[in-house]
Amino acid sequence: MPVSQTNLAGDLLLHLGRPGDGPLHERVKRALRAAIRDGRIEVGTALPPSRQLAADLGCSRWAVTEAYGQLVAEGYLEARTGSATRVRWSNAPDADSRRRAARQDPVARFDLAPGLPDLRAFPRRRWADAVRAQVTTAAFTEFGYPPPGGHLRLRRLLAEYLHRSRGVSATPQDVTVCTSVTDGVRRICHALRADGITAVGVEEPGWTRLREVIGAAGLEPVPLRADGGGLRTDELAGHPGLRAVLTAPAHQFPLGTVLVPERRAALLHWARQVDGVVLEDDYDAEFRYDRRPVAAVQGMDPSRVVLFKSLSKILSPALGIGWMVAPPRWTEHLHRADQAATQPSTLDQLAFAALLESGAYDRHLRACRKRYRNRRDTLVQALADQLPGTPVSGIAAGLHLILRLPATVDTAAVVRAAAARSLRVADLAAYHATEDHADHGLVLGYGNLADSAVHEAVRHLREAIEEGREGTREGSR
Amino acid sequence: MPVSQTNLAGDLLLHLGRPGDGPLHERVKRALRAAIRDGRIEVGTALPPSRQLAADLGCSRWAVTEAYGQLVAEGYLEARTGSATRVRWSNAPDADSRRRAARQDPVARFDLAPGLPDLRAFPRRRWADAVRAQVTTAAFTEFGYPPPGGHLRLRRLLAEYLHRSRGVSATPQDVTVCTSVTDGVRRICHALRADGITAVGVEEPGWTRLREVIGAAGLEPVPLRADGGGLRTDELAGHPGLRAVLTAPAHQFPLGTVLVPERRAALLHWARQVDGVVLEDDYDAEFRYDRRPVAAVQGMDPSRVVLFKSLSKILSPALGIGWMVAPPRWTEHLHRADQAATQPSTLDQLAFAALLESGAYDRHLRACRKRYRNRRDTLVQALADQLPGTPVSGIAAGLHLILRLPATVDTAAVVRAAAARSLRVADLAAYHATEDHADHGLVLGYGNLADSAVHEAVRHLREAIEEGREGTREGSR
Repeated sequence: MPVSQTNLAGDLLLHLGRPGDGPLHERVKRALRAAIRDGRIEVGTALPPSRQLAADLGCSRWAVTEAYGQLVAEGYLEARTGSATRVRWSNAPDADSRRRAARQDPVARFDLAPGLPDLRAFPRRRWADAVRAQVTTAAFTEFGYPPPGGHLRLRRLLAEYLHRSRGVSATPQDVTVCTSVTDGVRRICHALRADGITAVGVEEPGWTRLREVIGAAGLEPVPLRADGGGLRTDELAGHPGLRAVLTAPAHQFPLGTVLVPERRAALLHWARQVDGVVLEDDYDAEFRYDRRPVAAVQGMDPSRVVLFKSLSKILSPALGIGWMVAPPRWTEHLHRADQAATQPSTLDQLAFAALLESGAYDRHLRACRKRYRNRRDTLVQALADQLPGTPVSGIAAGLHLILRLPATVDTAAVVRAAAARSLRVADLAAYHATEDHADHGLVLGYGNLADSAVHEAVRHLREAIEEGREGTREGSR
Repeated sequence: MPVSQTNLAGDLLLHLGRPGDGPLHERVKRALRAAIRDGRIEVGTALPPSRQLAADLGCSRWAVTEAYGQLVAEGYLEARTGSATRVRWSNAPDADSRRRAARQDPVARFDLAPGLPDLRAFPRRRWADAVRAQVTTAAFTEFGYPPPGGHLRLRRLLAEYLHRSRGVSATPQDVTVCTSVTDGVRRICHALRADGITAVGVEEPGWTRLREVIGAAGLEPVPLRADGGGLRTDELAGHPGLRAVLTAPAHQFPLGTVLVPERRAALLHWARQVDGVVLEDDYDAEFRYDRRPVAAVQGMDPSRVVLFKSLSKILSPALGIGWMVAPPRWTEHLHRADQAATQPSTLDQLAFAALLESGAYDRHLRACRKRYRNRRDTLVQALADQLPGTPVSGIAAGLHLILRLPATVDTAAVVRAAAARSLRVADLAAYHATEDHADHGLVLGYGNLADSAVHEAVRHLREAIEEGREGTREGSR
């Protein structure tokens, strides 16, 4: 119900808050503004003279004139000489929007969804120490705007690291720091578009989010099949005009295969012929358990490849640190003001640089490699024990594997049945852009699965698969 | 000069590096890969049998077969049964790109360019402590992907803070954490475009970077004049079809004026009539020295305004933390996967939340307000002493003021002459989209000017202005 001039003081007193909430004139102003905004005082209402309201509220006249003056400046009130101060503005808020409750995804007890590293293993102390060391010793100028491609110290160390570990050929200037692989792909897509490129080949199946990012940037994602040898480069010929392709040569997602040598060469040959570019998603290439990782395709032709990596699979996606290596042809666009605005904190860039420089990053990688290899072995053994005859595919690498299921199992039903057991798994079909595919199974990520939970998780998975089988049978009746 | 099969061992020995660089087979592989990539071994060259190369290098045969095998997998070599292993690939690198030197902007001795807070005053210890406290106590699940709009704890605290300090009306869900005002504007532009909006009104003069961001997002920036009363809302009528406008009502940049009450109301009236949206750049509104800051326009109609803020003017642009308040109509797009990928580190979000919660942020703001007010007073006095009769304009607020100069002074020459004295200042003309304007002067930022340097900086500025005057005289001869 609207408040008239006469009961305004009462309404304000109800909303004045406590003395600890600030000086009285502030509290008067806030209460009056809220009364206007919430529609409790209508437009055109004349406010009581300041002397009268001050008396009613038991405050100084100054506090009221101060509040009136402020709200006039803000446009809520209007004051005319020789006339009462009146309400100029009113807006009833959207009460529903205020009541929407906070929603957070419930945390699954068993996390077998792909995409996460071991969150329990984040080197908390080392990170906090690295940040402190950088924050306390950095020159004050480091607290200004970072250069467009990121802090040069980090870019130099990344160029060295990528050369040493991934065979990447890059100067520090070729490295651009971004917030994630997704951010990097988003940024390069805008650069490609500005260069007249209208479509990007994507692996089918492939990482759904990057396909969405390509579409959101106004480019057409063109599915190209992937198989046991990685991306089928022979499909490139079927798309004349295509000049860009996104692929994960070291470890195809989700199939878990490696791009075979013939196709590596064919891919670059194609890129040269069409004056094109290969977007190399090198997301988890450090984790190979049976042999040394295959080097990046980027090293074979740095002028034709943009490489993307991040800390999301190595340390944590919460850090929001990624980087890309791009030929000079693209870097100018990547460093444009609108693109460069999405950079991780300079302090975090310097902390990461310190971890690279001290060797702590390499030690962390070695420890992770050992942990994930063991966990993968345990998981594969548990699957063989509990689900005999159900084949596992994908090379011994990364943070996920594929559990192949017979076509008689409803994989979507398995995912739902697993969720009901607080077990997160992913349906292989979810990574296909089309319905037309032969792959049938689950993608199991073991990065964030507690070692102690592997056996129990697989037991729950077996039960969920049993339900999926029954669901299919029921469905076919 | 290419290396033949016979002198390959010699070339590799030169590039093997030291034992500390890793296991021998790794070093062989790296040297061989580099020899191929740098074009020292040509495509088609047959490599020596592994036994022979091992003898030449003085290593085990295993080390050589391991290296060959790896490079076959990577596509550099090809192995055919019964035939020598041959080089499949070669690529001479772009030597020029490798030699490009690191470039960093030289740091000016006197920083009077607008846009920076006091970088010397960054609360280093408090920030490091806050990060450490959050990193060491956060639940392990916090190291996963943050929710699309940012961490809910920060969003709740920001909604409270904005309500208290800026009269903003928002639920935590209305707040989206981004990396900067630039990033926020970039993101909303993509949302506007998806909604069919093709142009955005911008203030003339105005902040150039945001104009560029609007253009880069594929929208047309439409200049609307600003004057002593802020944005001239009467100009909106001259652009039928316009449905979005970007403005800084609390403190127009660069003019330093406040949007007057009549225009605040007119702006929202227009937005309702055209079903449009006001983009409110609230970049430095906390810093008002003569009175309490005018509340945000957002509070007058939360359904029609998107508000942008960041830590860039409060703590440091190096942190890469910004936030925006948007009506539900836009948040869905803002939280899309490609948009949400550009988020600051969750750990930094939590550290910032802790500063808000403990009151440290408010204390920091109060200290800044006092420091900047004093510095502004000192600067204004120094300008009056050294450049008598040269008017200063802009309200007592924010981190910059305008020094008006007569049309006889070549302001571009002044900026150059100042730079030669290691003094950074900005030409007011640089913030105009068109040549056609009456404003003539310099924009002086005092945020990052050392208190002790104010007088010396103004002396240098006076000399630079003298030169600009002479330059004009010479030019007119």
